[in-house]
Amino acid sequence: MPHPKVAVLMGSDSDLPVMEKAIETLKEFEIAPQVKILSAHRVPDKVAEFVKNARSSGFEVVIAGAGLAAHLAGAVAANTTLPVIGVPLKSGALAGVDALYATVQMPSGIPVATVAIDGAKNAAILAAQILSIKYPEIAKKLEEMRAKMRQEVERKSAEAEKKYN
Amino acid sequence: MPHPKVAVLMGSDSDLPVMEKAIETLKEFEIAPQVKILSAHRVPDKVAEFVKNARSSGFEVVIAGAGLAAHLAGAVAANTTLPVIGVPLKSGALAGVDALYATVQMPSGIPVATVAIDGAKNAAILAAQILSIKYPEIAKKLEEMRAKMRQEVERKSAEAEKKYN
Amino acid sequence: MPHPKVAVLMGSDSDLPVMEKAIETLKEFEIAPQVKILSAHRVPDKVAEFVKNARSSGFEVVIAGAGLAAHLAGAVAANTTLPVIGVPLKSGALAGVDALYATVQMPSGIPVATVAIDGAKNAAILAAQILSIKYPEIAKKLEEMRAKMRQEVERKSAEAEKKYN
Amino acid sequence: MPHPKVAVLMGSDSDLPVMEKAIETLKEFEIAPQVKILSAHRVPDKVAEFVKNARSSGFEVVIAGAGLAAHLAGAVAANTTLPVIGVPLKSGALAGVDALYATVQMPSGIPVATVAIDGAKNAAILAAQILSIKYPEIAKKLEEMRAKMRQEVERKSAEAEKKYN
Amino acid sequence: MPHPKVAVLMGSDSDLPVMEKAIETLKEFEIAPQVKILSAHRVPDKVAEFVKNARSSGFEVVIAGAGLAAHLAGAVAANTTLPVIGVPLKSGALAGVDALYATVQMPSGIPVATVAIDGAKNAAILAAQILSIKYPEIAKKLEEMRAKMRQEVERKSAEAEKKYN
Amino acid sequence: MPHPKVAVLMGSDSDLPVMEKAIETLKEFEIAPQVKILSAHRVPDKVAEFVKNARSSGFEVVIAGAGLAAHLAGAVAANTTLPVIGVPLKSGALAGVDALYATVQMPSGIPVATVAIDGAKNAAILAAQILSIKYPEIAKKLEEMRAKMRQEVERKSAEAEKKYN
Amino acid sequence: MPHPKVAVLMGSDSDLPVMEKAIETLKEFEIAPQVKILSAHRVPDKVAEFVKNARSSGFEVVIAGAGLAAHLAGAVAANTTLPVIGVPLKSGALAGVDALYATVQMPSGIPVATVAIDGAKNAAILAAQILSIKYPEIAKKLEEMRAKMRQEVERKSAEAEKKYN
Amino acid sequence: MPHPKVAVLMGSDSDLPVMEKAIETLKEFEIAPQVKILSAHRVPDKVAEFVKNARSSGFEVVIAGAGLAAHLAGAVAANTTLPVIGVPLKSGALAGVDALYATVQMPSGIPVATVAIDGAKNAAILAAQILSIKYPEIAKKLEEMRAKMRQEVERKSAEAEKKYN
Repeated sequence: MPHPKVAVLMGSDSDLPVMEKAIETLKEFEIAPQVKILSAHRVPDKVAEFVKNARSSGFEVVIAGAGLAAHLAGAVAANTTLPVIGVPLKSGALAGVDALYATVQMPSGIPVATVAIDGAKNAAILAAQILSIKYPEIAKKLEEMRAKMRQEVERKSAEAEKKYN
Repeated sequence: MPHPKVAVLMGSDSDLPVMEKAIETLKEFEIAPQVKILSAHRVPDKVAEFVKNARSSGFEVVIAGAGLAAHLAGAVAANTTLPVIGVPLKSGALAGVDALYATVQMPSGIPVATVAIDGAKNAAILAAQILSIKYPEIAKKLEEMRAKMRQEVERKSAEAEKKYN
Repeated sequence: MPHPKVAVLMGSDSDLPVMEKAIETLKEFEIAPQVKILSAHRVPDKVAEFVKNARSSGFEVVIAGAGLAAHLAGAVAANTTLPVIGVPLKSGALAGVDALYATVQMPSGIPVATVAIDGAKNAAILAAQILSIKYPEIAKKLEEMRAKMRQEVERKSAEAEKKYN
Repeated sequence: MPHPKVAVLMGSDSDLPVMEKAIETLKEFEIAPQVKILSAHRVPDKVAEFVKNARSSGFEVVIAGAGLAAHLAGAVAANTTLPVIGVPLKSGALAGVDALYATVQMPSGIPVATVAIDGAKNAAILAAQILSIKYPEIAKKLEEMRAKMRQEVERKSAEAEKKYN
Repeated sequence: MPHPKVAVLMGSDSDLPVMEKAIETLKEFEIAPQVKILSAHRVPDKVAEFVKNARSSGFEVVIAGAGLAAHLAGAVAANTTLPVIGVPLKSGALAGVDALYATVQMPSGIPVATVAIDGAKNAAILAAQILSIKYPEIAKKLEEMRAKMRQEVERKSAEAEKKYN
Repeated sequence: MPHPKVAVLMGSDSDLPVMEKAIETLKEFEIAPQVKILSAHRVPDKVAEFVKNARSSGFEVVIAGAGLAAHLAGAVAANTTLPVIGVPLKSGALAGVDALYATVQMPSGIPVATVAIDGAKNAAILAAQILSIKYPEIAKKLEEMRAKMRQEVERKSAEAEKKYN
Repeated sequence: MPHPKVAVLMGSDSDLPVMEKAIETLKEFEIAPQVKILSAHRVPDKVAEFVKNARSSGFEVVIAGAGLAAHLAGAVAANTTLPVIGVPLKSGALAGVDALYATVQMPSGIPVATVAIDGAKNAAILAAQILSIKYPEIAKKLEEMRAKMRQEVERKSAEAEKKYN
Repeated sequence: MPHPKVAVLMGSDSDLPVMEKAIETLKEFEIAPQVKILSAHRVPDKVAEFVKNARSSGFEVVIAGAGLAAHLAGAVAANTTLPVIGVPLKSGALAGVDALYATVQMPSGIPVATVAIDGAKNAAILAAQILSIKYPEIAKKLEEMRAKMRQEVERKSAEAEKKYN
C-alpha cells in the first residue's frame, strides 16, 4: 500500500494540542503527515515557498489550522491548486468565530474546505475521504471506521436503554 | 480525457440561481455535473438512496447546497465516504449564518468540506482541486484558471492605476 | 391511567447529563420515556427506521437533543408526522448557538418544536402539554406542577422580602 | 370529522401578512383558527383573560407570533398548560434574532414550542402534528401533505435534471 | 428627608447575588428598596397585581432583573406608567445576549430603560438619577458619588503612574 | 400646567428622520423639547458644556441618539447626573447592533437608560414616564395614551377577527 | 511642502467605489496615493513583492481594503514594518462582520490598524494623522479639517434648532 | 537616540494586567510610555485636558484601552489629531465584542486605529511602526523583532517536525 502525503500546517506551536488529533487520525489511515509550524503572518515567505512546491513534492492534500484572523489556510490556498482543508481554532475573546469566518469566507476562485471550529480530527478524515477517490485502500479503511462508529453508537445506546428504559 | 462525475445536490429549486454557478464552473473543467433536487427533510429516503450508491455509480465528489437549518450536506456525508462539499445558502432572516453553522459544525467522524455562504462557484473549484490529485488534466486546467485570474487582477490594477495615480 | 410513550433520542452518550432531566421529568408525569442514542450522522438508517415506525409503535411525541450542527431533530421530523421536540445542546466553541439555529430554522413543511438551549426539562414539560390535549390526567398534573411552582416562587419571595426589606 | 380549535394570536396587525400563512394552512387541515390581535405589552389583561379560558373554551393549541422583544408566546404559555407554539417574527434592526431569543429561551417550567423566524406555516403544521395524536383524520391529512411534498420535490428535480444534466 | 420607594423585582432567587448590588446601592442613597421575587412566567398574576398598584402604593421607580427570555421588565412596563428599569442577567448558553435583546427591544409604546447585562448597580444609580429630578437631596448625593468616583480614579492613576512611568 | 424641559440631542443631522419621532411625541405630552445636534466626536467640548449646565438650565431629562460607535449618550451621562436616555440608531454595516452595545454596556457608575434600536418614540415616552413621578398631569396623559393604545389594539383585533374567523 | 506617499491597495476592482473615498481624502491632504489592485489570494506574490519594497520605495503608510475573509491587510502587514491600515469592506451574506474579524483579530506581533467597516475615508484621515507626527503641514491641515467639521455640526444644529425648537 | 513619548491610557486599574503588555513592549523599543488611568465616563474633563495638550507636550501616539461600551479611545480621538490606537478589552458578559464595536465603528472624521481584543502588545508594536516613519532606529528595531520572531517560529517548527514527522 502507498502512503499518500498530507501536510499538516499550523500557525503556532500552541495549536499543537488540537492539531495533534489530525496527525494521529492520519496515521490511523496510514497516511504520512508532514507537520510544520508556518505562520502566515510571521513567516509568510516560508509558507509560500513550502506550499508552491507541495504538489511537486508529492503532497496531495494540505491541512492548515489557525486561530484569530486565521489567514493560514487562505494563504496556503493562494499558493497551490491542491485541495486545502482549513481548521478554524478556538482562541481569544471571540472563541473561534473569527477564525471560522476568516477561514470559510474565501473569495471566488480560491476555496478552502473548512471544517468545524477545532475540528482537527475531521480535517484528517476529510483528507482521507479526498484521498479515497484515488486510493481504494483508504476507501476501505473509511468504511471500516464508519462501521466501528456505528457499533460504538449502538453499544452506547444499548447501555443507556438498559439504564433508563 | 475522462470526465469525472460530480453530483450537485440542492434542497430546493429556489437554490438553482446560486447553485447554477457550480454547474457552469464544473463544465468549464470538463467535469460532468449530475444535478438533483433532494431535500434532506422532504425526501430523506431519496437522499440516502442516491448517496449510498454514489461511489459505486462512479461519482467522486458530492456538492450539496442548502439554506436555513441546512442539513443536506450533513445528511449526504452521513451516507457516503466520498468527499462532500457543503454550500451554505443565504435565505431567510438570518441571511445564511444559520446555514453556515448547520453545515460546518459537523460532529467528529463525519466532516463536510464547507465553503463560503453562497460560494457555489468555489464549491466547483474545490471539487476540481480534489479531482486534480487523480486527474492531471484537471490540475493543468486549475493552473490555467489561476494564471487567467492573475492576469485579470493585473489588468484591472493597471486600469485603476492609470485612472487614480 | 394510561402511560403514553415518548421517545427521548440524543446524538451521543455525552448528551445524557443534560437529557436526563427530560427523562426524569417525563417520569414525574407518569409518561414512559424510551431512551435511545441515535446519531443522525453516525447511524442515519437507525434513525429513519426507528422514527418511521414510531407512530405505529405507539409513540405520541419524540424528543431529540443534539449539539453542534444539530441535525437529529430535523432528521426525525423528516421521517414522521408525530410532533417532534428539538433540544439544542450547548457544546463546542459556539456554545449552542449553532445547535439552536440548526434545530429551529427548519424549512417550510417540516417543523421542529424547539426549546431553549439545554432545555431538556422544558422539552419534557412541552411533551406533557402536548399529551394533555388527549390525556386529562396529564392536564391535571400540569396544573399541579404550576401550582407548586407558584408556591415555590412565593415562598422564596417571602424569604427574600424578610431578608432585604 | 371534528374541527379542533386553534387560537392564532399576534402582537400587532402588521404581523398579519406573515401570520396569514398559519391561518390558511390550518384551514387546509380543517382546523378552525380563531384569530386575535393581543399584544402582551399593550393589552396584557386581555391576553391573560383569553388564555386562561382557552382550554375550557375548547382550544387545544395556541399559536402566538410576535417580533422584537417577542413576549407574546411566553405570556401565553405563562397562563395556560396547553401547548403553545411561538413564531418569532422578523422586524426592526435585528431582523428577528431578538424575537427568536425572546421566544425560545424560556425559563424552566414554561416551555414555548418555537419554530423558525417567520415560520407561520410551520407553526400551523406543528399544530396539526400535535392534534394528530388525538385526531386520526389529521394524521392522515399530514401523510397526504408529505406525499404531495415529496412528489413536488421529485417533479422539480426531474425538471432540473432535464435542464442541466 | 423623604425616603422614596423603589421596587426591586427579579425572576428567581438565583438572581439575588447580582441584584443585591442594586439593593445596597439604593440604600446608600437612602432610597427604600422593596424586594420581591416575581417571575413573569411562573406567577404572572402576582406581577400584574403588584405592578398595577405600584404607583398608588407610593412606588416611583421599578427595577426588574431577569435572564434568558427576560420578560419580567416588559411585563412590568405593560402594567404601569412608572419608569421601569430593566437589568438583563447573564445566565445560560447565550450568556445574557438573549436577556439583553428581550429587555431592550420593546415595541413602540411600552419602553423599558435598559442597563448593561448584570448592571444591577447602575440600575440603582439610574433610579436615583430619575428620583433626583424630584428630590434635591438625591441630586446632591449623586454629585457626591461622582466626586468620590473621580477621586478614586485619580488616586488609582497616581498609583499606576508612580509604578510604571 | 408646567412644561418640563427635555433635551433631544443627536450626533448628526442624518439622525433627524428617526429622532423626529421623539420630538413629536414629547410635544404630545406638552413637554418642551430642546433639539441640538451635538456629536461626541466632532464637538466634544460643546457636548460637555451644554450637558454640564443642563440641570441648572432647567432640563430634567436628556435624550441622546447616535449610531455606529454610539458614544453620545455615554458622553452626556458622564457630564450630568440627570437621567439620560440613549437611542441606538441603525446605520452602517452592523445595522445598529454596534450602537446598541456602545450605548447600553456602560461601566459601573454611569448608567444610560437604553431603549430599542431606532426607538426614538419610546425614548420620549420613557422621558414622560420619568417626568410623571413629579408632574401628575403627565401621569394622567400617559394613562390616556395607554387607554387609546388598548382601544386601538382591540379595534384592529375586531377587524381581523371579522376577516379571518 | 513634501508629498508623502501612501499606498492604497484593495483586493478587487469592485472595492473601488468605497476605496475611492480614501483616495480623494488623501489628495485633500496633498498626500500622494498610489492605487493598486492586489488580491492576497489571487496574486499573493505581487502583494509580497510590492510590500517588501514599500518602505525603500518611499511609502510611509499602507492602506488595504478587502471584504469577506479579508486577508489583504494582514498579508501586507506580514511583509512590512510600515504602519498598515485595514479597511474591512461590506460584501456578501455576513455584511462585513467577517471582514472586520479577519482584519482586526491579528495575532501577536503583526498588528493592523483597523478602521470601521467601509471606513475608507477614516483610513485616509488616520494615515494623515500618522504622517502628522513627521510633517507639521499635515498636522495643520488636520486641525483645519477639524475646525471645519465643528463649524459644519454647529451650522446644522442651528438649522435643526430653528426648525424644531 | 531620542525616546519618543507614547501615552498609554486605560479606563480602569483593572485593565492594567492586559495593558501592561503594551507598557513593556514600548520599553523594549526604548519608547517612553506615560501611563494614566483616565476613564471617559468618570473623569471626562481629565481626558479632554490631557489629550488636548498631548501633541504640544511632545506625545506622538496615544494608546487607549477600555472594555464594555469602550468610549475611551473615541473620546481621546475626539480631542487630538495625533494617531490614536484603541485596544478593546475583554470584560463582562459580551466578552469584548461590545468593546470592539464601540472602538472600531467610529464615525467619519474621527478614526481610531483598532487592534484585536486584548491586543495590548500589538498596540505597542503598531505605535512603534507609526514612529518608525520618523525614527529610523525604531524601524531597525522592528526589523530585528521580526527576524527574531521568524527564528522563533522556525525553531518551534523544527521541534514539532522532529517530534511528529
